[in-house]
Amino acid sequence: MESLQSIQGVSLTHNMMEDLARMTAPWPEGKIFVIFDENTFHHCWPLVRGFRPLNENRFVILKSGEANKSIDQVIRAWELLGTNEIDRSSMIINIGGGMLTDLGGFLASTIKRGVAFINIPTTLLAMVDASVGGKSGFNFRGLKNEIGVIREPQHVFIHLPFLRTLAPQEVLSGFAEMLKAGLIADRNLWNDLKGFDPEAWDEVRLSDLVWRSVLVKKRIVDADLHETGLRKALNFGHTIGHALESEALRRGNPVPHGYAVAWGMVFEAHLSGLRLGLSDGAIREITDVVNKFYGPVPAELIDSDLLISWMRSDKKNSDNQLNFTLLGDIGTCRVNCIATEEEIRSLLSR
Amino acid sequence: MESLQSIQGVSLTHNMMEDLARMTAPWPEGKIFVIFDENTFHHCWPLVRGFRPLNENRFVILKSGEANKSIDQVIRAWELLGTNEIDRSSMIINIGGGMLTDLGGFLASTIKRGVAFINIPTTLLAMVDASVGGKSGFNFRGLKNEIGVIREPQHVFIHLPFLRTLAPQEVLSGFAEMLKAGLIADRNLWNDLKGFDPEAWDEVRLSDLVWRSVLVKKRIVDADLHETGLRKALNFGHTIGHALESEALRRGNPVPHGYAVAWGMVFEAHLSGLRLGLSDGAIREITDVVNKFYGPVPAELIDSDLLISWMRSDKKNSDNQLNFTLLGDIGTCRVNCIATEEEIRSLLSR
Repeated sequence: MESLQSIQGVSLTHNMMEDLARMTAPWPEGKIFVIFDENTFHHCWPLVRGFRPLNENRFVILKSGEANKSIDQVIRAWELLGTNEIDRSSMIINIGGGMLTDLGGFLASTIKRGVAFINIPTTLLAMVDASVGGKSGFNFRGLKNEIGVIREPQHVFIHLPFLRTLAPQEVLSGFAEMLKAGLIADRNLWNDLKGFDPEAWDEVRLSDLVWRSVLVKKRIVDADLHETGLRKALNFGHTIGHALESEALRRGNPVPHGYAVAWGMVFEAHLSGLRLGLSDGAIREITDVVNKFYGPVPAELIDSDLLISWMRSDKKNSDNQLNFTLLGDIGTCRVNCIATEEEIRSLLSR
Repeated sequence: MESLQSIQGVSLTHNMMEDLARMTAPWPEGKIFVIFDENTFHHCWPLVRGFRPLNENRFVILKSGEANKSIDQVIRAWELLGTNEIDRSSMIINIGGGMLTDLGGFLASTIKRGVAFINIPTTLLAMVDASVGGKSGFNFRGLKNEIGVIREPQHVFIHLPFLRTLAPQEVLSGFAEMLKAGLIADRNLWNDLKGFDPEAWDEVRLSDLVWRSVLVKKRIVDADLHETGLRKALNFGHTIGHALESEALRRGNPVPHGYAVAWGMVFEAHLSGLRLGLSDGAIREITDVVNKFYGPVPAELIDSDLLISWMRSDKKNSDNQLNFTLLGDIGTCRVNCIATEEEIRSLLSR
């Protein structure tokens, strides 16, 4: 294996200390601010302590948890960065999961009208999805990522050892986005993912699968950063998945993002059958793989009226049209497929 | 004269009703939100009432005044846009001066991670400067435009009749940025501006001067949107000008932005003489023109210690370096000229 798998803007690094030092060399240490949240500061900082230029004098530690992905926390962080004299030539390094890279990316994109930033994702979900592609933001009026911008980081460093800090459920949550990458764009990747064991994974093998998933995402994002078309491919599983996730949260029984997406992919595979003629064999295969890793959808989440109303309030949808990305076959997809309420209802009541 | 002077992204329109309708045709009326502030709603709305697609059902009216260029107002506006069901396919039209286009541009760039927007500047300052070039934001921690983004509007429409709503002092404030445009990049423009009469201007002639000033700004911004180099040319007069403006505000006796910039240009012309050999004749000419339109700098503002400390807290400067754009001759400039505190001190005590 090469010592560094790298494309423009993203590296899977096998020598994080050296690569990070090289990338940040143009910024003097005093100009670099590092943003953690409480969790990643506790679990991940020990793994990179002493790495240049992660100097504790310039740490900003945010509160963990989706409830703190809020304007209040953004305001406190703007204040903290400002009083610590961040300036336009400074850099921010975000170290954390998707919540942290979303918040940190927004902070970096707005303070002083934007400073350079690097993302160092610490969860599998953030490595293969959230930290790549420049989407940032926070929740507002009860809506996920209602406020934000799209601006790519200077660089994303993927450092697999952070995954050792995760529970199997968290690994599986990120793994769902890898399954999605295979389904929408890379049949071989999908096939290679099927045998993954979330409780006993091997770093070398996982690193290959992670990198191939990142390549799918990065290729799509580079072609359509502002999601005018192609980037919607990444929404496969997400129209219904987000609705399931919101409904679970409302019931006080949250499910990890990736689980909701995985279940959403099963529903949307069936819709792909109706709409694009995805074969019964492919639908069965997708259903089986998702069941194996994530179990069946919790029955209490399947309430057509509630789920449809969640879909309506989703940024992805406008007016009365529900917008889907669907599969023509495993490894290819089509964006902007419109489905009616009735179709969704019949799907959910299967 | 052509019926429409237009380059990519900016038009000086002579038939606003028709041009606006054409530009916004792809957006259904219900998708278009119009942002005014109290002043522009009072003075400018009557001039465009009935223009398609400015439908009162989708108006957001912000509080006027620099003190309201604040995170509190941003939050209220995000809420209002959200509850009125703005979605990703919506468009925002900002109608107002620089404060309004700065705020509205930020709102449009962040809600739902960004929707399309059009700027319709109503002050001369906004026409030739603020509304063009994509800088947006609000004041925070007492610092001007501390939080913001750089993202260009879909289009800027310059509609001269709005200038009839302005007092001569407001016209002069915008006029200073036109003088700057001539000084940094267009000697003929500078020469043609010298005879302007702020109390008795003619719309046809002014329209030509405005358009030539916009072309200077737009050419520079297109070459360097993110201000990594060339765009700093637009800062001529502003390093000292912003300090004068901040100091006047602190003393409870604010001066219009353009006046401060004009006075800043006189100081920075002298610095240009020291650093780049700008001729005595040119320095005298700049001084005379600024004195004629703006009078001399109010003596109480000239406090070297205070002005230098304002310059230090400016986004444009970092560490102990004060960054200037200076003139080599009238019509040409050089960015990234560094001056020492001692040089500034001697300049201010002339």
